[in-house]
Amino acid sequence: MSKKPDIPPHYYIQNMANELEKKGRKILHMEIGEPDLDTHPDIIREMYNKALEGYTHYGSVRGIPELREALADYINDKLGLQYTMDNILAIPGSKISIFLLSYTFLRGDRKKVVLLTPTWGVYIYLVRDMGLDLTLHKLVLENKWILTDEDIEKLKETDMDAIVVINPSNPTGAVLPKENIRAITDIAREKNAYIFADEIYFDLIYGGDEFHSFLQEGYEKAVGIYSFSKAYAMTGFRLGWIVASEDIITTVSKKMQLMFTNIPTFIQYAGLKAMEMKEIIEENREIYAKRTYMLSDGLEELGFKFTRPKAGFYIFSKIPEGFEDGFDFAYKLLFEEGVTVAPGTAFGDYGDFIRFCSGVSEEVIEEALARIERFLEKNKTL
Amino acid sequence: MSKKPDIPPHYYIQNMANELEKKGRKILHMEIGEPDLDTHPDIIREMYNKALEGYTHYGSVRGIPELREALADYINDKLGLQYTMDNILAIPGSKISIFLLSYTFLRGDRKKVVLLTPTWGVYIYLVRDMGLDLTLHKLVLENKWILTDEDIEKLKETDMDAIVVINPSNPTGAVLPKENIRAITDIAREKNAYIFADEIYFDLIYGGDEFHSFLQEGYEKAVGIYSFSKAYAMTGFRLGWIVASEDIITTVSKKMQLMFTNIPTFIQYAGLKAMEMKEIIEENREIYAKRTYMLSDGLEELGFKFTRPKAGFYIFSKIPEGFEDGFDFAYKLLFEEGVTVAPGTAFGDYGDFIRFCSGVSEEVIEEALARIERFLEKNKTL
Repeated sequence: MSKKPDIPPHYYIQNMANELEKKGRKILHMEIGEPDLDTHPDIIREMYNKALEGYTHYGSVRGIPELREALADYINDKLGLQYTMDNILAIPGSKISIFLLSYTFLRGDRKKVVLLTPTWGVYIYLVRDMGLDLTLHKLVLENKWILTDEDIEKLKETDMDAIVVINPSNPTGAVLPKENIRAITDIAREKNAYIFADEIYFDLIYGGDEFHSFLQEGYEKAVGIYSFSKAYAMTGFRLGWIVASEDIITTVSKKMQLMFTNIPTFIQYAGLKAMEMKEIIEENREIYAKRTYMLSDGLEELGFKFTRPKAGFYIFSKIPEGFEDGFDFAYKLLFEEGVTVAPGTAFGDYGDFIRFCSGVSEEVIEEALARIERFLEKNKTL
Repeated sequence: MSKKPDIPPHYYIQNMANELEKKGRKILHMEIGEPDLDTHPDIIREMYNKALEGYTHYGSVRGIPELREALADYINDKLGLQYTMDNILAIPGSKISIFLLSYTFLRGDRKKVVLLTPTWGVYIYLVRDMGLDLTLHKLVLENKWILTDEDIEKLKETDMDAIVVINPSNPTGAVLPKENIRAITDIAREKNAYIFADEIYFDLIYGGDEFHSFLQEGYEKAVGIYSFSKAYAMTGFRLGWIVASEDIITTVSKKMQLMFTNIPTFIQYAGLKAMEMKEIIEENREIYAKRTYMLSDGLEELGFKFTRPKAGFYIFSKIPEGFEDGFDFAYKLLFEEGVTVAPGTAFGDYGDFIRFCSGVSEEVIEEALARIERFLEKNKTL
């Protein structure tokens, strides 16, 4: 087997897959969180029109007021809150959000970050690369990926200046109950720690669970991170936003101004147009649900062990017996059958897990399941 | 007079100007480096078509191969070099370039940065904010903003892990002679230091001076930073690129992948389209030259002291007698006459300087000159 990569392992798998594709192999991609849905043409047309109208110049760092107002209204409607545009910062993605928040607030002797895992692995690499003190708090499949009383107790005893939580979860698709959100907030408040809450999948819950946001706890050091990428199938636009107290937004936007000038204004108008078509979210949610159920059914039949996702489009499963670890499984599955999945180590201390992305088409899911079945047979694990 | 701001002073002037505009004041903006030219509609149409074709998904971190190839060819043609696409990284702006290069390479006990000043002030704030050890090496008007033998000697005695140079200069419009480039490179080589060379205005030289790039010295730790913003009037697209050794590009792109995913692919195609229309650069260069000459003539007539720019669209001038400093001048000029300029402290230790942007229309230049004349008369400095 190949040596362990020095970049997040799913990027490594992805890069290898790209090499194989160049040689003509047909690869079924299930390693990245990229739905195959296209952006609605009306959104693209609005971007075009605004660029033609002259919105091709420098813009305001925080984002255009119309967009920030629409985003505040949206969050207020969904969560029953009272934000204004001054609580909103447009930002080109969740990675840069976590980076910029950490860069801004975790300085001097305030450098201790807790990541609730499994977590989108780039956050682990990013925080580690910044030289921050990282503690991974490990949740487990056996508890359906939610926090038990023991988890709460352990977190109470953990030093932290910030805690990063992805809810609904990438990679598990679990939705934390209100009691978990409240307990984490109480702990952060007690420790005067920031909460960086990646709630990007919050409007893609189809499992019937009620979503409770960290913002609803009214803690002034909680920051919510959101995006147009998945809900509107706009990954390539690089348009997201964060919600926080006016103080936090002001401080972060000053740091951001030193690095970026602004998100292209015509892209922000595309986002504004998307928000006039919220039915897109409903449609996409149904598509993601259908595909995720389909992949879940198929993987369960093949004997994979996981909790069925309630949001988003990922399945985080134990690997079958007979493989060294998740990277070994992913590596062999890629070379033997041309299907890419993300090794579990990309998400924390989950060596015997893999993540499937179910954002692909039903045809791809069907074909992938057939290939995986053959792969398991060949490797005598069935 | 107002208290000194905690953000770059030209951002402060700009923010105040925006406030006055909201109250209905007509402001003539000469504080930011924003040409009033619009992006060519064919470039915008290409972006639209590519987005409609489905280029709205995640893309490769380094940028699309076609663009990187075209950029390598362009640099090779202009500078007589032999780069390939593996020497190119598409990046959303020069601020993030300096940030990311510093973040990547200036770690541990390698944290000493020299900035040649006057420099675009955001670099000063950015480097300082990163906690790096900053040395400002001060060039002077009396030497026409180029390095003398004494400057070279002093730099030889200065500790550095990296040196940041803007050439052609923002804010002075000076072009460093080949001997300067060579001397700086020799010093960096001797000290094993990086050279981060912002050469963004390299194809906007109209003063007849020959441009010599740091890349032409063949030093493996030199990085060139370039942009579509000014040459193609595409500031709002946030599209730039860096040129360096394959090692540097590989290392930086791995860091970048932790923060961003990619520049929107449809924007990269817009850049590729622009490169098929290089006559835009010729046209824009002529426009910038004409405007800069016009403003230079007018300011000279009013008694301002500066060297005439040979590139770009800035004039960096001493303030007339009778003002406390450049911030005082800028503040009063804004409130009394509604003209914004950037205080010299934004560019280093230049308290008695101001920067005018001549990227505005001839009408604005004419009107601004009239207002400035009235302002000087009122303040009895003529």
